[in-house]
Amino acid sequence: MQGVVIHAPEDLRIGTLAVPALQRNQVRVEVKVGGICGSDLHYFHNGGFGTVRLREPMVLGHEFAGTIIELGEDVRHVAVGSRVAVNPSLPCGECHFCRQGMHNHCVDMRFMGSAMRFPHVQGGFSQSVVVDASQAILIPASLTMAEAAMAEPLAVCLHAAHQAGSMLGRRVLITGSGPIGALSILVARYAGASEIAVTDIQEFPLAMAVRAGADRVFDTRSDPTGLPRYCEDNGPFDIVIEASGAEAALRNAIEAVRPGGTIVQLGLGGSPNVPVNLIVTRELRLVGTFRFDREFVLAVELMSAGRIDVKPLITSTLPFAKAFEAFELASDRSRSMKVQLDFQKR
Amino acid sequence: MQGVVIHAPEDLRIGTLAVPALQRNQVRVEVKVGGICGSDLHYFHNGGFGTVRLREPMVLGHEFAGTIIELGEDVRHVAVGSRVAVNPSLPCGECHFCRQGMHNHCVDMRFMGSAMRFPHVQGGFSQSVVVDASQAILIPASLTMAEAAMAEPLAVCLHAAHQAGSMLGRRVLITGSGPIGALSILVARYAGASEIAVTDIQEFPLAMAVRAGADRVFDTRSDPTGLPRYCEDNGPFDIVIEASGAEAALRNAIEAVRPGGTIVQLGLGGSPNVPVNLIVTRELRLVGTFRFDREFVLAVELMSAGRIDVKPLITSTLPFAKAFEAFELASDRSRSMKVQLDFQKR
Amino acid sequence: MQGVVIHAPEDLRIGTLAVPALQRNQVRVEVKVGGICGSDLHYFHNGGFGTVRLREPMVLGHEFAGTIIELGEDVRHVAVGSRVAVNPSLPCGECHFCRQGMHNHCVDMRFMGSAMRFPHVQGGFSQSVVVDASQAILIPASLTMAEAAMAEPLAVCLHAAHQAGSMLGRRVLITGSGPIGALSILVARYAGASEIAVTDIQEFPLAMAVRAGADRVFDTRSDPTGLPRYCEDNGPFDIVIEASGAEAALRNAIEAVRPGGTIVQLGLGGSPNVPVNLIVTRELRLVGTFRFDREFVLAVELMSAGRIDVKPLITSTLPFAKAFEAFELASDRSRSMKVQLDFQKR
Amino acid sequence: MQGVVIHAPEDLRIGTLAVPALQRNQVRVEVKVGGICGSDLHYFHNGGFGTVRLREPMVLGHEFAGTIIELGEDVRHVAVGSRVAVNPSLPCGECHFCRQGMHNHCVDMRFMGSAMRFPHVQGGFSQSVVVDASQAILIPASLTMAEAAMAEPLAVCLHAAHQAGSMLGRRVLITGSGPIGALSILVARYAGASEIAVTDIQEFPLAMAVRAGADRVFDTRSDPTGLPRYCEDNGPFDIVIEASGAEAALRNAIEAVRPGGTIVQLGLGGSPNVPVNLIVTRELRLVGTFRFDREFVLAVELMSAGRIDVKPLITSTLPFAKAFEAFELASDRSRSMKVQLDFQKR
Repeated sequence: MQGVVIHAPEDLRIGTLAVPALQRNQVRVEVKVGGICGSDLHYFHNGGFGTVRLREPMVLGHEFAGTIIELGEDVRHVAVGSRVAVNPSLPCGECHFCRQGMHNHCVDMRFMGSAMRFPHVQGGFSQSVVVDASQAILIPASLTMAEAAMAEPLAVCLHAAHQAGSMLGRRVLITGSGPIGALSILVARYAGASEIAVTDIQEFPLAMAVRAGADRVFDTRSDPTGLPRYCEDNGPFDIVIEASGAEAALRNAIEAVRPGGTIVQLGLGGSPNVPVNLIVTRELRLVGTFRFDREFVLAVELMSAGRIDVKPLITSTLPFAKAFEAFELASDRSRSMKVQLDFQKR
Repeated sequence: MQGVVIHAPEDLRIGTLAVPALQRNQVRVEVKVGGICGSDLHYFHNGGFGTVRLREPMVLGHEFAGTIIELGEDVRHVAVGSRVAVNPSLPCGECHFCRQGMHNHCVDMRFMGSAMRFPHVQGGFSQSVVVDASQAILIPASLTMAEAAMAEPLAVCLHAAHQAGSMLGRRVLITGSGPIGALSILVARYAGASEIAVTDIQEFPLAMAVRAGADRVFDTRSDPTGLPRYCEDNGPFDIVIEASGAEAALRNAIEAVRPGGTIVQLGLGGSPNVPVNLIVTRELRLVGTFRFDREFVLAVELMSAGRIDVKPLITSTLPFAKAFEAFELASDRSRSMKVQLDFQKR
Repeated sequence: MQGVVIHAPEDLRIGTLAVPALQRNQVRVEVKVGGICGSDLHYFHNGGFGTVRLREPMVLGHEFAGTIIELGEDVRHVAVGSRVAVNPSLPCGECHFCRQGMHNHCVDMRFMGSAMRFPHVQGGFSQSVVVDASQAILIPASLTMAEAAMAEPLAVCLHAAHQAGSMLGRRVLITGSGPIGALSILVARYAGASEIAVTDIQEFPLAMAVRAGADRVFDTRSDPTGLPRYCEDNGPFDIVIEASGAEAALRNAIEAVRPGGTIVQLGLGGSPNVPVNLIVTRELRLVGTFRFDREFVLAVELMSAGRIDVKPLITSTLPFAKAFEAFELASDRSRSMKVQLDFQKR
Repeated sequence: MQGVVIHAPEDLRIGTLAVPALQRNQVRVEVKVGGICGSDLHYFHNGGFGTVRLREPMVLGHEFAGTIIELGEDVRHVAVGSRVAVNPSLPCGECHFCRQGMHNHCVDMRFMGSAMRFPHVQGGFSQSVVVDASQAILIPASLTMAEAAMAEPLAVCLHAAHQAGSMLGRRVLITGSGPIGALSILVARYAGASEIAVTDIQEFPLAMAVRAGADRVFDTRSDPTGLPRYCEDNGPFDIVIEASGAEAALRNAIEAVRPGGTIVQLGLGGSPNVPVNLIVTRELRLVGTFRFDREFVLAVELMSAGRIDVKPLITSTLPFAKAFEAFELASDRSRSMKVQLDFQKR
């Protein structure tokens, strides 16, 4: 069995992996499609992010879907042949936070393809993978594997929207139009935002934003005063989804939101300078959002029902053997949104 | 008539003021007591704060109380001789925010003793002052003028507590134990916090914090690891009131709060470096709080009913003619909490 | 000038009305289209509802749109010829509730076509009407007068949705599929509900519900156990919009909602028997919703942007001279949803 | 070993009980004090309440405290000799609601002294009892057993207050001044209510309410217009805690609360007539509250720290052998608030 293994920055290899035994509560999934996420790119380029560092080779990937090929004894809700989206998060269910229903804050979380704990939890970019049965979410025939592999990032954006509170009739600004920003457009539109504006510093992601349903876009690099001018004429926004992690974007966000408004911070980006005085005098709410919980199932459900269509955001699919090329392509924001790997082709 | 006028940094003078005529909806108040606030000290030392700058001489003071000595024709709810706490804020009642009940965000706010607009709105540190009848809040005989002059900062802290949500049974950390931090202790205690911890970088304010009801205090200068050690043993806090405006205090606040917890930012302090990654991964809420609205009347009510006792926080009272000395005393955190001026003595 | 005047139960007449003078802040609107609301039908059949009783002849109608034909001196935001939706509510702006932004609870509200105060506030079912300039909301050329006359009931449903909190990914049950229930389907769909179920006791409104976007409907008269069976298999709902005012529907609502769930009570219906024990043991939230506030402008905006399409709910349009016939038609739930009057035809 | 066993309405006996074996995760508690709750009285007088009916003899009691006399092998947080308050609720930890942190809605809840499930879960009114280690909450030496036995009803009232939202500066009405109403007074006072009014239909509980800290009381039987008159003069309340379960009290509650205000329904009382029209037009929130969750530990903590003093509410203590007499005494609201049983005396 082969998989996509990161060894060190820029050292990404197709490697041969041991096939683990299956426990009673587990399933073996033949992986069909996996999507490359921004955090995968951080491992690829920098060997980690923030304080999280690669300390041993790790299979990447936490956005993937496939078909059940083997069942543990106790597993009932799926069968061999079932098509599933795989939830990469496995909370312990026992800790203080799990007992309160805050599973994304589990102190013993096992999140696939993450170097946060050591030994690292191996990811899903391999020809098959063993996961807990609870992680395998059945999908209908109408959903493609490519869409199912989008359930994880869509869940992230649904969770962010839940942190924002009701968007019905709200004017929403999304700063950063990468895959997470673009999915947030789909979610904000679905959640009833009356207006969606999007910022980025490149043309291609802004064009994709328009395609995803943005009412207007601002290139803050080529026209830094465009957003402030727009706010001056039309009033500030009710809600901002900060999806870039960039210091300048957070500053834009804070300046563009109305007194009492909400900024949901989705992007990770360290310890920027923040205009806290504006947070005080405008009584803003800056709220963090981290991963997701029950939103994974909701993401599958909304895509399955045809209510949210993520397909236009998938810009390329490459055979997994070309993972290195795919990671470089995914790093090029001038032509890529979501890049996926096909694990059925070499 | 004389008043306390700031002309430039460190240039504070007792000056002679014109006696303005009274309009139908106004009252003339003989000022009895006025308290010196941190923003008064900013004008005194720096001629302003942030982008707010002194552009003409201004009577300082927005914490004061006195006795009605003249009534406009239309005024009914008070009489000559009525003892009143004066609410220094006069929202327009007509703007977009006033119409939504967000009076503290009024775009045409007249806030006494503030250089935010030009000409500046003159303050209350004078022998008499003319205010809108709506600003004069009747106080009972049981309330001293000194206490009544504390209604404004107490209102600020009540508003901050409202921004925090219910404190019942919550563990609350207050960073910074100046007058606002200390009043926040009284409020948190009154609002049912189960535990109140307080940080500062000096001994005197921490001793005052204990007197105000703090369960425990941490001197983050002499023992920087005290708070982190305490959190490690006893778990993080549910709510932080950040009352210092210091970058280090906000960092402490963010590190000391539990996932999903709330930090209410009360202190003004510019654009510090903020560990936004922790806000994201712990899904914290950083919420600004600015001035107050109906909490002014509530402050008067709670002091009048004996439910909150602010008297221990008043460390000195000087005749207004000694304003310069009083401002220097108020600036010395090693021996002063709230310093008030007596306008009946010279 | 002629209008539709209710004199007593079942005594609805086309009457000749005086043309009032215009004040500085007012506009005269030539009415084009008016929609018949359930409360109009209550006046028509019963002379009122609850404690509200007709005490003098009153022009009916609070859902209408038209064209400005005369301007008061101070009016700027519209011109002669402007096409407008008319907001029938005129809060005083001065009372305790208005000052807090709770305009729908104004103690001195003037609501058109309502007998709540005496003299009654005359309604909009006349060839022209004088309203405060603030009540005239400009509409774009793309919006028909018929749609504009739907702004008021749509605003009612948007306000109800705001009372419910975020609907994103929620399973929503709507009990009662009259015009308000059907508009609530459009709103819940727009607000991101993941599933919408609807109950009624007649076939036609349920067919309309499906057309409006309901995922499933239950005829609680012909199949009383259908909804309970569905809940047993699929779990209870997160949110109920009770849009009927019927005792049985509220009971269904309470039984069909999950622990901690929300029931928004929209329908008026007196003092029914309520299974309060279930509210207690399931910790339900039963929340009232009354009229609307800023949602009127939002309703115009969402229809104008093509985001909510109310046209399929308009089942008939009759010349205003046939008002009696129109009111009888509107009362027949087996074939009518929204019936409108055309004031340009006789 | 002997215990207090209900066999049928009015058939309460001291019976001899088997001593169960101890499992690894359990502790054996020598019961010291047990308090009689309203639901115990329902079993005593009526053999149950609502649809809950006694189907076999059952030891009563879910408010009790004692000393650990035996430990299961896996138990660590207490020792033989530890003094504990016993939490009578044991949620399964596995069901849909437990996983969301909504333990009081556990579908497999084992609540002591309750006939909700069959076989019934035996209660704590016996000389010793075996409970899960998680149910035994350590108390400090400063807390008497009598106070510790009040942790359960205090937890109920703390949970109700959490359902109400922040009480800081709110005007609170409590309808019904039995033990739960009176404890709610202590909680509302502690949570920062600015005013607390209480209603009942008897003199003794109202006198106790004043002793517990009520600002004013209304005897709605002897003076039915007292509360409405008071509201007319002083305005309606922000929050009502309905602690009686009586139809008339809920009606009073709804009429006495301001637009947008909250009524927390604590009392159980079937399916009364409810003025739903007022809920609609005033946009009230009627919220149920059921038992408690983490508030049990909080109750112990607040009593231990001396922040809430429940002792004045304990009106009598009888040896457990006189249980019948004690239950009759507890049923007499003209002279009893909380009646407790002493299990160390016969």
